[in-house]
Amino acid sequence: MNTAPETHQITPSRIMETATAFFASKTLLSAVNLGIFTALSGKSLSGKEIQNALKLHDRGVYDFLDALVALGFLNREGLLDTASYSNATDTELFLDKNKPSYIGGFVEMANDRLYPFWGSLEEALLTGKPQNEIKHTGRSMFEELYAKPERLKQFIDAMSGISLGNFMALTRKFDFSPYSTLCDVGGAAGILSVEVARQYPHMSCTSADLPAVEPIAKEYIATKGMNGRVKTANVDFFTDEFPKADVITMGMILHDWDLPNKKMLIQKAYNALPEGGAFIAIEALIDDDRRKNAFGLLMSLNMLIEFGVAFDFTGADFERWTKEVGFSRVEVITLAGPSSAAIAYK
Amino acid sequence: MNTAPETHQITPSRIMETATAFFASKTLLSAVNLGIFTALSGKSLSGKEIQNALKLHDRGVYDFLDALVALGFLNREGLLDTASYSNATDTELFLDKNKPSYIGGFVEMANDRLYPFWGSLEEALLTGKPQNEIKHTGRSMFEELYAKPERLKQFIDAMSGISLGNFMALTRKFDFSPYSTLCDVGGAAGILSVEVARQYPHMSCTSADLPAVEPIAKEYIATKGMNGRVKTANVDFFTDEFPKADVITMGMILHDWDLPNKKMLIQKAYNALPEGGAFIAIEALIDDDRRKNAFGLLMSLNMLIEFGVAFDFTGADFERWTKEVGFSRVEVITLAGPSSAAIAYK
Repeated sequence: MNTAPETHQITPSRIMETATAFFASKTLLSAVNLGIFTALSGKSLSGKEIQNALKLHDRGVYDFLDALVALGFLNREGLLDTASYSNATDTELFLDKNKPSYIGGFVEMANDRLYPFWGSLEEALLTGKPQNEIKHTGRSMFEELYAKPERLKQFIDAMSGISLGNFMALTRKFDFSPYSTLCDVGGAAGILSVEVARQYPHMSCTSADLPAVEPIAKEYIATKGMNGRVKTANVDFFTDEFPKADVITMGMILHDWDLPNKKMLIQKAYNALPEGGAFIAIEALIDDDRRKNAFGLLMSLNMLIEFGVAFDFTGADFERWTKEVGFSRVEVITLAGPSSAAIAYK
Repeated sequence: MNTAPETHQITPSRIMETATAFFASKTLLSAVNLGIFTALSGKSLSGKEIQNALKLHDRGVYDFLDALVALGFLNREGLLDTASYSNATDTELFLDKNKPSYIGGFVEMANDRLYPFWGSLEEALLTGKPQNEIKHTGRSMFEELYAKPERLKQFIDAMSGISLGNFMALTRKFDFSPYSTLCDVGGAAGILSVEVARQYPHMSCTSADLPAVEPIAKEYIATKGMNGRVKTANVDFFTDEFPKADVITMGMILHDWDLPNKKMLIQKAYNALPEGGAFIAIEALIDDDRRKNAFGLLMSLNMLIEFGVAFDFTGADFERWTKEVGFSRVEVITLAGPSSAAIAYK
């Protein structure tokens, strides 16, 4: 083969790793769905004990568990019949269903919805059409969610799971001291409002979302003992103006919509703020040069799969759109992992 | 939340990265399937030119291409409307369909077969049953392949793609000088025989496989100009003994079978070798402690999904099985990426 000398230097390793990366994804997603990390909460179990607890077939037990060891999600002492498995530090904290720090809601949704929908990425690229429930029901993703309380709960848990780290980072990195009131538009379970109210006792926070979401938010706020500090409000952001507040926040809201709706939401945020107020969008913001934040770009493809017309954006996009409606200044603060807060000051 | 202080140190980043790693997989798999790297062979194109060539919808073009840039599979100069895209060094060499170094056969198979089948990993773990075509047709994977020439060709191309790097490494790392004859059992297109014959002009090599495979092997051998040097032989390794040879090789064959069949194949290799002969199995060998080679363990789960009873194994397993039938000594040589050659000397 006349390319042989060249292939000695250039290897297909990166291609093979990415081409098969779904093996590792699905192994982790299945482990969460089967409840392995919950079964191992605070203790060690043998392979046989895990097999019995999860009703696994003989064939795959040790390959499955040892793959999770090799991926760093389980610890292990001994080998095969003498092995004793336990959770890694992060899976113990974030993937035990009985801990408040559980983020497995997102993982469960990735398993049940995103993995199969991404199977049709090619069709999405060719047609520009969403590839989720809408293909079969004709209803939009949000219509689906609001029609099915258990789906809505799963979606909100998923969003809470992936957002908590960002909201905690935001309360450390953004100084809320100059402000008194905050309204989190599309607040879901109220996580952001609870985090800000906890870190800034002087702040009055409101989590605004559709009526179907309110019971979920009220329950979360009560569980956190923040009843007096965080309020809920019913807001349909297509038909209603936003409640007035010094700070308007939106966590992973803008990326769900096409450009006209993004601009409509930005305009309403502007209208609700006083001079000097801050509009904060928390997103997997794409870097301005669109070549570093792979996750942000892939999340934008995820928006194509979920909504068709929706898309993620850069800090430069956010600055252009917010300045168009009158905001004076924009800054970007990096948060957890690939996420950032884009902040526009009125 | 009472775990808040702890979550400041421990982040869910690794969990989130692996949980969403299938985004990147499917993006690369779709790019290969759509022929992007072939369209970009040896040249640069604008986003619009790629869109037209591949008939992509407006919505996803730049997110898709820029995600491939961020993942390192495309290069880019300029941005959006002024962007010019070209292949990265590895995708130019390995993912251009018109190059003999194309390994996209495996990627195409991963896209068409493995990605959807891995959607049922949980069912495989609970039942021990394969999750591939057999679920719908009742025929085994190999019966399916041999019944459909285009599927067989795709499978053989896939195996060739992922094996070439290993076979090239083997001819560099293993000294074939003391031997005169080689028989590659389950030789598929004959890649291993061609590589060995090319590097060791004194060697007489035979690629042995089922009759349905022979035309594919003959064509490959002729294309490589190795007609006189590499022979083909029809061998059904369930019913036939192997042709006698100084070296018997098997590339990703043993992992396709359950333990009794693995041992049957090892016995037949032993029978076909002279004293001092070598039996070489090339596999994604799992490390003896089953905690380092994640890909080997995941490949074993892939065998569960393809065959149910089949599984990958460690060098220690290989040593135990080969010594049981009389081999005297075993060594392991690492090859490309996560693969190794396990060698048993008679």
